[in-house]
Amino acid sequence: MQITFLGTSSGVPTRSRNVSGIALRLPQRAEVWLFDCGEGTQHQILRSDLRVSQIRRIFVTHMHGDHTFGLMGLLASCGLAGNPERIDIYGPPDLDEYLKACRRYSQTHFSYPVKVHTVKPGVVFEDEEFSVSCAPLKHRVPAFGYRITEKDRPGHFDVEKAKVLEIPSGPLYGKLKRGEVVVLPDGRKINGAELCGQTEVGRKVVYCTDTVYCESAVELAHDADVLIHEATFAHQDAELAYQRLHSTSTMAAQVALGAHAKQLIMTHFSPRYAPGNSIELRDLLEEARSIFPNTQLASDFWTYEVPRRIAKSVVAKV
Amino acid sequence: MQITFLGTSSGVPTRSRNVSGIALRLPQRAEVWLFDCGEGTQHQILRSDLRVSQIRRIFVTHMHGDHTFGLMGLLASCGLAGNPERIDIYGPPDLDEYLKACRRYSQTHFSYPVKVHTVKPGVVFEDEEFSVSCAPLKHRVPAFGYRITEKDRPGHFDVEKAKVLEIPSGPLYGKLKRGEVVVLPDGRKINGAELCGQTEVGRKVVYCTDTVYCESAVELAHDADVLIHEATFAHQDAELAYQRLHSTSTMAAQVALGAHAKQLIMTHFSPRYAPGNSIELRDLLEEARSIFPNTQLASDFWTYEVPRRIAKSVVAKV
Ligand SMILES: [Zn+2]
Ligand SMILES: [Zn+2]
Repeated sequence: MQITFLGTSSGVPTRSRNVSGIALRLPQRAEVWLFDCGEGTQHQILRSDLRVSQIRRIFVTHMHGDHTFGLMGLLASCGLAGNPERIDIYGPPDLDEYLKACRRYSQTHFSYPVKVHTVKPGVVFEDEEFSVSCAPLKHRVPAFGYRITEKDRPGHFDVEKAKVLEIPSGPLYGKLKRGEVVVLPDGRKINGAELCGQTEVGRKVVYCTDTVYCESAVELAHDADVLIHEATFAHQDAELAYQRLHSTSTMAAQVALGAHAKQLIMTHFSPRYAPGNSIELRDLLEEARSIFPNTQLASDFWTYEVPRRIAKSVVAKV
Repeated sequence: MQITFLGTSSGVPTRSRNVSGIALRLPQRAEVWLFDCGEGTQHQILRSDLRVSQIRRIFVTHMHGDHTFGLMGLLASCGLAGNPERIDIYGPPDLDEYLKACRRYSQTHFSYPVKVHTVKPGVVFEDEEFSVSCAPLKHRVPAFGYRITEKDRPGHFDVEKAKVLEIPSGPLYGKLKRGEVVVLPDGRKINGAELCGQTEVGRKVVYCTDTVYCESAVELAHDADVLIHEATFAHQDAELAYQRLHSTSTMAAQVALGAHAKQLIMTHFSPRYAPGNSIELRDLLEEARSIFPNTQLASDFWTYEVPRRIAKSVVAKV
């Protein structure tokens, strides 16, 4: 599970930061899921090592242009890149109508099915490995935060050890794999848990933008391995944040703290904090770290590998 | 008058070429006029020495996404860049409704007036220095070529010489500036033409895309100083050109030849001719030059200064 930031500026692109777009790469299924798609997201993908043809799902937080104006171009290019079965898009109520209008006026015909799902708070997608849920945030237009939950995976079953113990293969293996205690035909009692590695605890990634500090962000981000939270403004400009319903880096840190997240990554920065200005992004970072030390600043093309929790306890044993 | 190519790829962006966008810089009035605005045009402007805040007019050839999907983002950014009085946009019938829909769904409010003009064949804009007219092309959707005509300017009036001749300043100056013959109060006859430099012949720039070869392009481009014409395909792929109603480089050259243009610049290239493929852009260039020698290939960020015709005759005199 790798997160690649494709755009980390709020409102307008700058020379070094594009408008919002995040790719979540799921290597085990050769899929990429996008979160938001500001103008130029497909161009950023071209400049990264991601492949447009792997995009399978797109989650949109809200309808503002810096989060949506890259959708049509990307979807049109996906057809030419030879995309898979179909693309599922999840977003607020107006998204479907917006895309329909764009397709109609530009006479764009996708060569593959595109399905738009209007989200409501709760689970918006689920399969055997993942579930994605969303919660309303507090912005000038309806906005949703997303929580991607990787399901827990039972530890690896040690087939070699089972063979050495001369356990007959068949339905017994299934029980042992689930960690159950089993009585063999020869009377031996075998504890499945002893044949299984540790359960791989699923990871939780939460993305909250655009929003001013709100309790539903704290709830959505509960126990997250990574919380990606907008931090448009510095605390000194908190008045602007309240006016425009954006967050300061202090607010982002407070959400991470309240949610007991493991890691905070801030993004969606106002261009006013570009290097050389009286307040710079390192000031926003310092501000956040004084509240939530495990904080980082996102930058375009930065890839963050979400660590497995299991890794820690294995290390602890050694 | 400088033409800067911001995007020279057809359909999709590549690593080296963005989708369509051309800037015409008019230094004498500190204005930039855009022709087409594919996704990422504002990003290209950021990387050039053009200023978003100087954009005053945008001319759109047709509604396909690779010519329009950058409009909304650019217009939104113009507001933040502190744009001038207003922006006038010229384009096909659906453009106004498309922009309205985008503004509504994305809740984008421009901080300055934006006026959309639906074009019909003929003059679409005129002021003291310039006129812009358009003509229908032959594409899968309604498409218009544009002709920008700089009006002739009377030669520079030699004020010093007039002073030496002791011509009283006032209304007589105006007549002399227009090259008229004037009788002074003291009876002397003065020929204004002798006090004026040569008339500066206005330049004509013509932009034809997207289109298959058509007579109306030849007419529109008549006597152009520069014809910018699409050349999506090589002659070998002429069948594709006819199917999709695009041009080959042979067709572009035939239009330039038939129009007696001075210079042909080809653009809107299919990514299939990228370096390393069996047909490359230099093959398209050779193909065109065999018909119309004065041909060049556009590339992103290339700036072409449109030469003045007067310059030649001055040189000839020396
Ligand atoms: Zn927003
Ligand atoms: Zn087209």
